[in-house]
Order: sequence, then structure tokens, then C-alpha cells
Amino acid sequence: MKLKDAIRTIPDFPKPGIMYRDITTLLTNRRALTEAIIQLSAPYQDKDVDNVAGIEARGFTFGTAVAYELGAGFVPIRKKGKLPFKTYEQDYTLEYGTDTIEVHADSIRKGENVLIIDDLIATGGTAEAAVKLLRKTGANIIGAAFVIDLPELGGTDKLVRMGIPVTTLVKFDGH
Amino acid sequence: MKLKDAIRTIPDFPKPGIMYRDITTLLTNRRALTEAIIQLSAPYQDKDVDNVAGIEARGFTFGTAVAYELGAGFVPIRKKGKLPFKTYEQDYTLEYGTDTIEVHADSIRKGENVLIIDDLIATGGTAEAAVKLLRKTGANIIGAAFVIDLPELGGTDKLVRMGIPVTTLVKFDGH
Repeated sequence: MKLKDAIRTIPDFPKPGIMYRDITTLLTNRRALTEAIIQLSAPYQDKDVDNVAGIEARGFTFGTAVAYELGAGFVPIRKKGKLPFKTYEQDYTLEYGTDTIEVHADSIRKGENVLIIDDLIATGGTAEAAVKLLRKTGANIIGAAFVIDLPELGGTDKLVRMGIPVTTLVKFDGH
Repeated sequence: MKLKDAIRTIPDFPKPGIMYRDITTLLTNRRALTEAIIQLSAPYQDKDVDNVAGIEARGFTFGTAVAYELGAGFVPIRKKGKLPFKTYEQDYTLEYGTDTIEVHADSIRKGENVLIIDDLIATGGTAEAAVKLLRKTGANIIGAAFVIDLPELGGTDKLVRMGIPVTTLVKFDGH
């Protein structure tokens, strides 16, 4: 099972020049989904992961399944205004403007081992914000794992410079 | 492990009189999450589920983990405009106005066995829309499973009247 073959590429979406990597064809392929969860989890099986943190919305898919595989809990990182209890917030810059993500302040105890999961890392702007956000909880971030890496956009390098080990399953050239 | 005890109730959120059932405390509790995924999956282990369909965003969490447990694929049902390929659409009525959900038109083959998963069923408006949407793909909807049921709001009855078997894990009185 080559995971890369299960990912559909849609040229010029959402705008001309972008090769959009569509993960939904991997999700709906039962063999590919099983294999992806096993591969995402494998490097962390002996790391005593307390919680997996997933970024809304696609990070919720792989994130919760990895949490289940690792016997860990799952912590949703959501767009501002979606979580009902006391939160920490983190702003980050988008191509146009800024956005804010939140996590429940009591969802992670100080020193807990947390693994970040998302479907794709590109420039790493969202992942960097997730690291900053989770550090506010006192989490010990033991790593970040992504199904797809677009290495030319520098996101994985950015996380490594922040001291976060990164594992990825599939790389695509360009963006 | 009583799953109900892992769910936090927040009074008067998002508005006075509403008892909000906060599933995030269950997600971050590793024993409760494991138990919830096992209980959600159990009635469907011998049903040859091809795909689990989860509704954005909280349905993505339990949905993908149940898909992994059942060895099935996962199909995301998303708010309009988020999916990059050809879709089917379904409108539904909210308290104020309407909303639209979509699914990739090629994500489910005609006759495939599909299980719907979401965190909570209340009036069943979103779940009803998900059933109508999935029927456009030719899916054989074998059931719908929810962590939380608010039975007084009639959602489970609505699905049963549509011919969809429903399983739920935890019931709360009122709304």
C-alpha cells in the first residue's frame, strides 16, 4: 500500500498555481486509513503519550484515531469561539490577516506528554501557533506528526528550530 | 468507567437555559475515549461497514477512530465550500436560517454500507440532513451512532422513522 497513491491532487485549487493535496481519498480508502494511523502512531508507541492534540478540522480525523491507537486522550485545538470553557488563545498570521486558535485551559496538565497531529504541514504557520498555544498549558510537546509534508515550504524546519521533533509519512514537491 | 461522568455540563451556554454537554472532557480522558470508541463500534463489528461518515467538526473525532477500529474508511461530511472535488449538497434548517452540508460525490460507491457517527443527537436536524445527503450517493445506511442522546428533543425518533437504526451511549434529560 503506497499511501502517496491514495492522495488525490487537484490542480489549481483553491486558486491557479496551487496543487491541492486532497486527503479525503486516503480517508475513504480503508487500507490506506489503517496504514496511515499505524504509521503515524509507530514512532510514539513507547513515548508514553498522554494526549494527542489535533487542529480543527482535518487534524481531528487522524488525531483521534492516533490517540485511540496509542491509548491516549485527545485534545481539540479549535478556531476561536468554539470551545465552551476557559481557554488559552494564540494568534497567528495567514496570507491575508490573522486568525486565532484556542485550547481548553484545563485539558492538559503541566508536564503531560503531548503529540501534535495534523493532515498536512506546509509553511508551518498553524503548527507553530499550536506549539505556542500548547506551551501555555505547560505541556511537554514530544513531537508533531503529519501525513503530508511539503518540505519546500519550510514548515518542518520551522518546528525543528522550535525544538519539536517532526515525523511525516508522504512528501510532495512544490506546493 | 461511567462515560457519563466524563462529560462536563456547562449551564447557560451558549445562552441562558441551555445545559451544554461538553464532550472535550471525555476526549481528553484516555480511559473514557478508549471505552467510547469500543462501545460506539461494538454493535457494528459484524455489519461489514465500508465507510464511517462523520459530520464536521466533532463527528470527525469519534468517526475516524471508529472507522479505524472497524477497519473501515472515513468519509467527512463538511460545511459547504470546504471540499475540493465534485460534491452532493443538502440544505437543512437551523434555529435561525439554513445551512448546507456536502460530501464528495465519489467518496461512497452505490450500495456500500455506511455508518453515521456524531458526538451528540438533539433535534436530529443535522443527522436527518446527513441521511438525505448520503442517500444521494446510493449508500446503504446501516445505522447512526452517537455518544450523547437528548431523547426529549426527538432526534433519535426522527432517524428511526427514516428507517435508520440508532445506537447511543449516554442519555441526558432536558436540553
